[in-house]
Amino acid sequence: MTDPIIIAIDAMGGDDSPKKVIEGISLHSKLSKNIRYKIFGDKELINPLIHQYKISDELFTLFHTNKYIKGEDTALTAAKRGKETSLWLAVESLKNDKAHAIVSAGNTGALFLISKLNLKMIENIDKPALSALWPSRKSMNVVLDLGANIECNPKNLVDFSIMGSALFKALFPNDKPKVALLNIGSEELKGNAMIKDTYQILTDNKYSLFDFKGYIEGNNIMDGNVNVIVADGFTGNIALKTAEGTSNFIISELKKALTSTFVGKLSSIINFSNLKKFKKKLDPRLYNGAILLGLDKPVIKSHGATDSVGFANSLKVCEKTIRGKLIDQIKNNIS
Amino acid sequence: MTDPIIIAIDAMGGDDSPKKVIEGISLHSKLSKNIRYKIFGDKELINPLIHQYKISDELFTLFHTNKYIKGEDTALTAAKRGKETSLWLAVESLKNDKAHAIVSAGNTGALFLISKLNLKMIENIDKPALSALWPSRKSMNVVLDLGANIECNPKNLVDFSIMGSALFKALFPNDKPKVALLNIGSEELKGNAMIKDTYQILTDNKYSLFDFKGYIEGNNIMDGNVNVIVADGFTGNIALKTAEGTSNFIISELKKALTSTFVGKLSSIINFSNLKKFKKKLDPRLYNGAILLGLDKPVIKSHGATDSVGFANSLKVCEKTIRGKLIDQIKNNIS
Repeated sequence: MTDPIIIAIDAMGGDDSPKKVIEGISLHSKLSKNIRYKIFGDKELINPLIHQYKISDELFTLFHTNKYIKGEDTALTAAKRGKETSLWLAVESLKNDKAHAIVSAGNTGALFLISKLNLKMIENIDKPALSALWPSRKSMNVVLDLGANIECNPKNLVDFSIMGSALFKALFPNDKPKVALLNIGSEELKGNAMIKDTYQILTDNKYSLFDFKGYIEGNNIMDGNVNVIVADGFTGNIALKTAEGTSNFIISELKKALTSTFVGKLSSIINFSNLKKFKKKLDPRLYNGAILLGLDKPVIKSHGATDSVGFANSLKVCEKTIRGKLIDQIKNNIS
Repeated sequence: MTDPIIIAIDAMGGDDSPKKVIEGISLHSKLSKNIRYKIFGDKELINPLIHQYKISDELFTLFHTNKYIKGEDTALTAAKRGKETSLWLAVESLKNDKAHAIVSAGNTGALFLISKLNLKMIENIDKPALSALWPSRKSMNVVLDLGANIECNPKNLVDFSIMGSALFKALFPNDKPKVALLNIGSEELKGNAMIKDTYQILTDNKYSLFDFKGYIEGNNIMDGNVNVIVADGFTGNIALKTAEGTSNFIISELKKALTSTFVGKLSSIINFSNLKKFKKKLDPRLYNGAILLGLDKPVIKSHGATDSVGFANSLKVCEKTIRGKLIDQIKNNIS
């Protein structure tokens, strides 16, 4: 048997932690083999939960600390809380090769800053990018950058194309990723100089890792015809948040429509299993687990508001990036 | 009785025109009073339709031309097609005060260029902005710029705030518009210098026309807590298109879910009137009619792919901007 995969987990970050974290570990451990969890956090809170969710002793190690970073801390305040917080200790164990990946559902800014302070960048990559999964008609897309860098240059976007493709490949080993640049569609105005320059570089060079498919507009992101969608962090964040808002709006209007009358309620009950399938495909927990790409080790951010099912999914993302040798894939393709 | 409102209409642009245009005029004329339509296009095609849709002689004047601009023309090619195209003649009638507004479902780039060549900018406004309506939980928002200007400065965004508020006021005379700047939400990175400078100007100055409410993230656009959402044209276009794509994706997944089995189909039929209400609230035809703000006369763009109901709605937008004295509102508030 090969050596187990080890995931370092900040158990204290996010809403309803450490409960959802420990329950999430329990869920993940039932579906995965040969994984070990290094759990960082307050033993007084965590031990009863480990008992409650019946996680076997051989699967985890608990590293006690009662210091942790709060959701409302700025990144700087968080870093100043020192090296004994659960987040810092978890990142440090990754740095010292005691784990293969780190995941936290806590403060995003703190995770980024403490990761950057402790870990190295992959050689020749200037900026890290936040990347996540996005549902499509066919399967799932990788979209990046979702907000780590407000301003980017063409070199950054080319790096993002390579890193995003490596991530897609780690998740879906059998497919050659198709990459597109997020742009606007107005006829006379096809993007700014930065995007046009990136387009030129991606067209002039051949990349063995992916096929470049040109521009994509926001309304085609979910069509599933490309797999990796690249943007600067400002644009990517606007797109992600707008999709989230639109989805919430439509689902809440649908709920109103389906339950506003007795007939509506009744027919929704009849249609229960179909609506359940629909809901499942759109369940944001299924897409939980964003990755800070560009560091030389895998750093995964779980949504703070997710529950144990969502957190278990972010553990699955950790596992896939490790098994798929994400970092090696990136290194081999960056020249 | 006051003088009638006169709308100049390019009947030849967009899919399935002039049919949808003439049918749209017929629909609009049944709901509105004291309106006259100046129709520009090919009489051989238009006259039978006017007969078919029973538009009374006193409601319209037909200006014949068999030259028109094609959807695939670049703006420049379109302008070169000359002054006898249906679009040019329609814009010219607005320029010469023979109409109060112009609407076209044709080529967007051509409409912008020909409008800019013929009409003046409102004094002290440097750039026109494309503005449209967007559904919200409470009512409708105005969002701009949707793609007329890729790069903007703080002065442009302040102008957009004023123009967008004037538009909202023309559509909803009883409400004082609440304005917000579209921005990203990552804690440590709150927008670029341009957005921060705009924020400062809008905070330091008091505007009688609107209340400035700070930043808004993409996921809150549809909450209905603000009425006017301001962005540069690149960002606004990305948001609009992403919302459109997300909406299409969810609706098509929902359709699949509701009709994939016999039980699904049956219960959808039972739930028909509720689903119809839901569909109506999200019907894009209801929001059809974007406005090119900043010119000293109202220029309205109908979606090219809409049908007669959508086109009738863009005529309603023309009517409301004229009755609401949109241009005067803008002029009075630009200093």
